[in-house]
Amino acid sequence: MDLNPQVGIIMGSRSDWDTMINTAQILEEFGVSYEKKIVSAHRTPDRLYKYAEEAEKRGLKVIIAGAGGAAHLPGMVAAKTIVPVLGVPVKTSTLNGLDSLLSIVQMPGGIPVGTLAIGQAGAKNAGLLAVSMLAVYDKSLSEKLHKFRQKQAEEAIVEPWEA
Amino acid sequence: MDLNPQVGIIMGSRSDWDTMINTAQILEEFGVSYEKKIVSAHRTPDRLYKYAEEAEKRGLKVIIAGAGGAAHLPGMVAAKTIVPVLGVPVKTSTLNGLDSLLSIVQMPGGIPVGTLAIGQAGAKNAGLLAVSMLAVYDKSLSEKLHKFRQKQAEEAIVEPWEA
Amino acid sequence: MDLNPQVGIIMGSRSDWDTMINTAQILEEFGVSYEKKIVSAHRTPDRLYKYAEEAEKRGLKVIIAGAGGAAHLPGMVAAKTIVPVLGVPVKTSTLNGLDSLLSIVQMPGGIPVGTLAIGQAGAKNAGLLAVSMLAVYDKSLSEKLHKFRQKQAEEAIVEPWEA
Amino acid sequence: MDLNPQVGIIMGSRSDWDTMINTAQILEEFGVSYEKKIVSAHRTPDRLYKYAEEAEKRGLKVIIAGAGGAAHLPGMVAAKTIVPVLGVPVKTSTLNGLDSLLSIVQMPGGIPVGTLAIGQAGAKNAGLLAVSMLAVYDKSLSEKLHKFRQKQAEEAIVEPWEA
Amino acid sequence: MDLNPQVGIIMGSRSDWDTMINTAQILEEFGVSYEKKIVSAHRTPDRLYKYAEEAEKRGLKVIIAGAGGAAHLPGMVAAKTIVPVLGVPVKTSTLNGLDSLLSIVQMPGGIPVGTLAIGQAGAKNAGLLAVSMLAVYDKSLSEKLHKFRQKQAEEAIVEPWEA
Amino acid sequence: MDLNPQVGIIMGSRSDWDTMINTAQILEEFGVSYEKKIVSAHRTPDRLYKYAEEAEKRGLKVIIAGAGGAAHLPGMVAAKTIVPVLGVPVKTSTLNGLDSLLSIVQMPGGIPVGTLAIGQAGAKNAGLLAVSMLAVYDKSLSEKLHKFRQKQAEEAIVEPWEA
Amino acid sequence: MDLNPQVGIIMGSRSDWDTMINTAQILEEFGVSYEKKIVSAHRTPDRLYKYAEEAEKRGLKVIIAGAGGAAHLPGMVAAKTIVPVLGVPVKTSTLNGLDSLLSIVQMPGGIPVGTLAIGQAGAKNAGLLAVSMLAVYDKSLSEKLHKFRQKQAEEAIVEPWEA
Amino acid sequence: MDLNPQVGIIMGSRSDWDTMINTAQILEEFGVSYEKKIVSAHRTPDRLYKYAEEAEKRGLKVIIAGAGGAAHLPGMVAAKTIVPVLGVPVKTSTLNGLDSLLSIVQMPGGIPVGTLAIGQAGAKNAGLLAVSMLAVYDKSLSEKLHKFRQKQAEEAIVEPWEA
Repeated sequence: MDLNPQVGIIMGSRSDWDTMINTAQILEEFGVSYEKKIVSAHRTPDRLYKYAEEAEKRGLKVIIAGAGGAAHLPGMVAAKTIVPVLGVPVKTSTLNGLDSLLSIVQMPGGIPVGTLAIGQAGAKNAGLLAVSMLAVYDKSLSEKLHKFRQKQAEEAIVEPWEA
Repeated sequence: MDLNPQVGIIMGSRSDWDTMINTAQILEEFGVSYEKKIVSAHRTPDRLYKYAEEAEKRGLKVIIAGAGGAAHLPGMVAAKTIVPVLGVPVKTSTLNGLDSLLSIVQMPGGIPVGTLAIGQAGAKNAGLLAVSMLAVYDKSLSEKLHKFRQKQAEEAIVEPWEA
Repeated sequence: MDLNPQVGIIMGSRSDWDTMINTAQILEEFGVSYEKKIVSAHRTPDRLYKYAEEAEKRGLKVIIAGAGGAAHLPGMVAAKTIVPVLGVPVKTSTLNGLDSLLSIVQMPGGIPVGTLAIGQAGAKNAGLLAVSMLAVYDKSLSEKLHKFRQKQAEEAIVEPWEA
Repeated sequence: MDLNPQVGIIMGSRSDWDTMINTAQILEEFGVSYEKKIVSAHRTPDRLYKYAEEAEKRGLKVIIAGAGGAAHLPGMVAAKTIVPVLGVPVKTSTLNGLDSLLSIVQMPGGIPVGTLAIGQAGAKNAGLLAVSMLAVYDKSLSEKLHKFRQKQAEEAIVEPWEA
Repeated sequence: MDLNPQVGIIMGSRSDWDTMINTAQILEEFGVSYEKKIVSAHRTPDRLYKYAEEAEKRGLKVIIAGAGGAAHLPGMVAAKTIVPVLGVPVKTSTLNGLDSLLSIVQMPGGIPVGTLAIGQAGAKNAGLLAVSMLAVYDKSLSEKLHKFRQKQAEEAIVEPWEA
Repeated sequence: MDLNPQVGIIMGSRSDWDTMINTAQILEEFGVSYEKKIVSAHRTPDRLYKYAEEAEKRGLKVIIAGAGGAAHLPGMVAAKTIVPVLGVPVKTSTLNGLDSLLSIVQMPGGIPVGTLAIGQAGAKNAGLLAVSMLAVYDKSLSEKLHKFRQKQAEEAIVEPWEA
Repeated sequence: MDLNPQVGIIMGSRSDWDTMINTAQILEEFGVSYEKKIVSAHRTPDRLYKYAEEAEKRGLKVIIAGAGGAAHLPGMVAAKTIVPVLGVPVKTSTLNGLDSLLSIVQMPGGIPVGTLAIGQAGAKNAGLLAVSMLAVYDKSLSEKLHKFRQKQAEEAIVEPWEA
Repeated sequence: MDLNPQVGIIMGSRSDWDTMINTAQILEEFGVSYEKKIVSAHRTPDRLYKYAEEAEKRGLKVIIAGAGGAAHLPGMVAAKTIVPVLGVPVKTSTLNGLDSLLSIVQMPGGIPVGTLAIGQAGAKNAGLLAVSMLAVYDKSLSEKLHKFRQKQAEEAIVEPWEA
């Protein structure tokens, strides 16, 4: 856990960690400092506002929020800070995360949330999008990202029938 | 506008009034005191918390919240007060209110929102559900509700081919 | 089972009990008297009408109805009584409860059903919404609800990586 | 209106007549006696039960019920009579009748409703299915149906570019 | 297998039998004669037409067709015979049977298919709807159906917590 | 209309011509011979079989079938011929063509239909896919297609704000 | 692996092979030469363009592309070649392949992708559609396809209850 | 049009400008330099790659891509550059933009696209999210954004019934 993290990962409940750990792993792989916290929009609304209100002055550059169902966390954090917010729809047992997706992405004009795919792929990509946002202003991170892409391309084409 | 209203009608934006006016009309028909306010979860998050925090001590007995799209208003009000909250999904131009419905109804265990139908029928019914909640403790309101139902039944069966 | 229960929990079939037990547990936790019954709208339509017709004079203050598929139970009970009715869409094996949700929530103007989330979260929340409706008129219940919320907030933020 | 109709057409509200008139037109075209009635499951639940209870002894051979939204009419009639019930999902302004369709078709095992397409095509086909059910036991009707099919086939292939 | 069956059960593939066996069981319980056959609309289109063309003169009074995915069997049989056709949407591994449902129920005006619920409940109900269609002209079957309903009502209310 | 057309355009009803005219226009633009016909799977099932049965020996190289709702035409033609079949889901007034799409694309293993987008874009593309299928064996058509693509690219980038 | 294959099977990731192996098996059964390759639109975009650009001169007559989620592979290959492209939507863990289907089939007018069913049935059918496209110009293949259809018809009607 | 713009707005076709103009208006309001271009993934694939390949060295800090239907533009640009990409799903006439949304948001792990709401609200928010990304490193922009939020809050609560 870093003292002055660049990225804040928050999630609506304990069970979302299985999804959001994919965000954390990407940030660690790139050496980007981050913090992680459970912040439930519905069960801990004051904690949510406090987190969002302090985000800017604490120096957070991106907030990544994962939530499922009536997933209000990303949108409400975005309503309370001008720090860019990315949202990860967590898969739900009933509607498979379609509810989470629509609750996060269908924000009204005025308060944006950059939304990623449902589930683990989305959580991984939230990390990568945060890295690319920082990399615009960080040459060394930009180089790491180019290398990551190259390695990813090489690994993608290993064919199952060659094994 | 009543000084000590029993019911608070709030809505996410000006355009939701076309829907929520149906709630107000029912409350007026039953002589139930109410107030109405624009409270945008995303554009006026502090106003939302203030409204919700004061609701109980101001004596509100039911809050009816209408919102569209990533409709966070009902759920966030419910997160900040123990006053019962009813939610009305406003029809949207893109997904017809399915997004509003899922954003309002799919609340996690712990913070309930009693959700009504999408659009005007739902707004009318939010008013009627509020009336029925008050009527449990108000004999005269209960009588009015019985009469309303009876009149409604009589009007329902007027057949178009009889005209 | 209480003699003069404040809340009636009904459900369309035996298998719905796995979901609706979550409602019962909340009511027990809050010490709210309740009864529970299988009332199938389709297989026992007369039992349904009898139950709904007697609800008001038996002193029920809220009825919570859980049903799946073409879930007609909540809406038909609501059609026959002015006691407030809450509906819980039970998850189905084919359409995951989207059918149950739409069948319960899309009531026409005139007869409201306050609808909760699909499945166990919705069942739990139906109990909590009933408690909040009673708490408006019951100071001691209101205090219990405030404490429940506080405890819930504290438990929500126990983080999985701290263990 | 016939005194001892073979088919009963019922519908949830006045506005459903625009759809259900297509059923009536088919029955008239085939000379099948029928009656038509507004019977709202939610606003006139007793009228619904009475209608269903008397259907068998009144000699109705098929009941065709059209309804929209949380369309409980066909299923509840089916629950109260053993006369075969056909359901027509009326198109709704919010969810286009997908809600009506699922509310009508997703009946639990034990009480069947034969469901037709959403809207006018479904209403027309409900009439035709009723005719085919009667035609099994009515040679003259069976012949009319064969002729109807043949004429329909001939008209179907009139090509727009030939005009 | 009966020589001159009243009901024909057909299904699109071998795997549909797990669903359609529920239809057969109902018909056996009521002593209604039936036959069962694999008739694939897509893989055996000629067999389909032959079956449909002979249905009327072979004395079939109802045809029940179960199929999944692009479920063309019920609609194509209906196109080729005036014998009433009931359709059972079989649950699919990808879209859970929503594809089967829409393919069966959304027939154009002119050729009706009475559609039941997705999966086993629908298969059971197809049997029951066929029985009710025959019962209109068969007093003894009508009595059996009344008894079935009564027994079903009694069994429905056996409560799980009483055990 | 050509005597020995390479492509057959068929559609389920007269109203589908508004959509399928886009297919015809592409074929004319490329000078590919075609015929067009109304063939209703449900209202003219024998015409459908006849058309499909003769397609191969009549020298048709591709069949393009447009249909809406329970769109059985493409799949049934495919079941009766080995000539490649392309399907165009026509937009419907109730479910916007989602029903048409699923009815056409979700074919079971064994009988393929190459499905295009819902509506006019899909009809145009069915024409283009047919052209590309013929172009594999026709140098001059292949050159025309390359030119079409180039022109299309040039026209695509004309920007609205430059006008 | 053939040196000058007629058909190219490509897929977005290693895990798609479980689906696309069904395409390969059909091509082998018919003795149609093919190649198979992992080509990820998103992780190896240059490989994708190179593959598509060379397809025509390498003599490929059909390209079959399988992909899941935001499945861009089929459409982007189609954008870069005039060789006919068939698309197979791979089933996804979150939205069951509905996302894959819409991403593949809803192509804009100008660039067609012939889309098959979601998952294994679609993969098998992509192979069969490719075979039928080649069979138009290959008598011996055409005969094999007729035999395949006949065998398929015979196997389809083996009934489970006869065993 | 700026010479060295910070933000690139691209869109799949001319008709998308009605939506994407909302992005441009926000950037102008904030004085953020931008360029706008038609880049069709399907009709001008080479232009797409060229644009994406040059984006980083041309100094673009954010790319905003709007597209409808099988909306491949945002994802393919993201595949070819490490500059952060935001996607705007344009509303479609058939599926209302649900197809666009799923095609854009459901990206596989490895290549992220930050997705906004369907239609004009999403386009406006893409502009605002880009502003917030730049504002992290630009004090004066950050102040403007705070003021924008404040003004937006004040305007949001102007109530329609006060007029």
